[in-house]
Amino acid sequence: MSTGDDAIRGVRDHDGRPSRASVGRLSLYLRRLEGFLRQGLLKVSSGQLGEALGITDAQVRKDLTHLGHLGQPGIGYPVRELVGAIRRGLGIDRDWAVAVVGVGNLARALLRYRGFQQRGFRIVALFDSDPGKVGQVVDGLKVHPPEAMAEVIAATGAELGVVAVPSEAAQGVADALVAAGVRGVLNFAPVVLRLPSTVSLVSVDLTVQLEQLAFLVQMHGPE
Amino acid sequence: MSTGDDAIRGVRDHDGRPSRASVGRLSLYLRRLEGFLRQGLLKVSSGQLGEALGITDAQVRKDLTHLGHLGQPGIGYPVRELVGAIRRGLGIDRDWAVAVVGVGNLARALLRYRGFQQRGFRIVALFDSDPGKVGQVVDGLKVHPPEAMAEVIAATGAELGVVAVPSEAAQGVADALVAAGVRGVLNFAPVVLRLPSTVSLVSVDLTVQLEQLAFLVQMHGPE
Repeated sequence: MSTGDDAIRGVRDHDGRPSRASVGRLSLYLRRLEGFLRQGLLKVSSGQLGEALGITDAQVRKDLTHLGHLGQPGIGYPVRELVGAIRRGLGIDRDWAVAVVGVGNLARALLRYRGFQQRGFRIVALFDSDPGKVGQVVDGLKVHPPEAMAEVIAATGAELGVVAVPSEAAQGVADALVAAGVRGVLNFAPVVLRLPSTVSLVSVDLTVQLEQLAFLVQMHGPE
Repeated sequence: MSTGDDAIRGVRDHDGRPSRASVGRLSLYLRRLEGFLRQGLLKVSSGQLGEALGITDAQVRKDLTHLGHLGQPGIGYPVRELVGAIRRGLGIDRDWAVAVVGVGNLARALLRYRGFQQRGFRIVALFDSDPGKVGQVVDGLKVHPPEAMAEVIAATGAELGVVAVPSEAAQGVADALVAAGVRGVLNFAPVVLRLPSTVSLVSVDLTVQLEQLAFLVQMHGPE
């Protein structure tokens, strides 16, 4: 799985596991359900959940089948149980420690991104190859040199690594993260990374997102 | 199309247009092809292109059918023509002017993201509601107050708007961008935005990306 997109197809991929698109929707359902909980709603129908996200109720029901038998026809899903089931399904009923490599503006934005903390993603280690940045403290975390990666990652228990360096440095950083023991890499550099099959990879190429937007706007034609 | 995910299915969606997944892959092919061009390669096979991206050659051929009849069986695709066809197909054979609202770390990261310039995305306007930021010059661009949005967007010709503000401000900012005349919105706030159907929307929820990664790592099981 070398890019963020090639596994995105239906609800399940070849192995019978939920597809990335379905997993992405689970994240969105979770956000909406937590809103419902705050409003004191105890039951929710697939129609309500779909409407809130612009998805058909059939798609909602299909996505939620991964989580076991939760809803009852005509009665709907119990909101609190569904929240728990999605969190377990996504693997976020636990905390994940995250290491970030490259302490630029993107890393600083990620450090202040409230959503991460709320979802149990704790940034526990920062690395940068710039001697001017090593030793600095950013949002309470000390910036370590790349040489300390194996030691710091072992000590902090970071299982996920974020690549937030320029393209030309990205593969080397990813290799170092893997050598240091991370099990998953989130890559922001606009390059295709090659990782061992035992390590999971999700790539966020911001230019691809803008290109998709340009394409959609163009498809709409002139106003 | 209210989220970045719900249209992601096969190669073509219900309207017979390429799906978002396919559009995303076109962006990746383009990156790879430009690399081939720099290496002096004139022809490329679907197999070579697929291998470079970890995609089957059948998928590559399917994706490229949108672009017209370009390749010949056993001969492959002419690299330069394919680059041009993808750029036209994606709507990036022209420049796009982009306005960014919210001048925090994310906006600063976007301003320095070299990929945007290379692909013809020019950030031409910055807005922030913080009086302490209004009037500042960031990477050569003056920060305008939200009240100036309609005027500045008309003057700069920005067609795409980037929402880089906290969640609670995102819908209001998106509405203001739409009222000011943008035709597409790239949203980084972790909320579902509601926009008129005439305006395209792509959402990048960074927590969703980390959740997908956690899910994949968990699926891999313990090492």
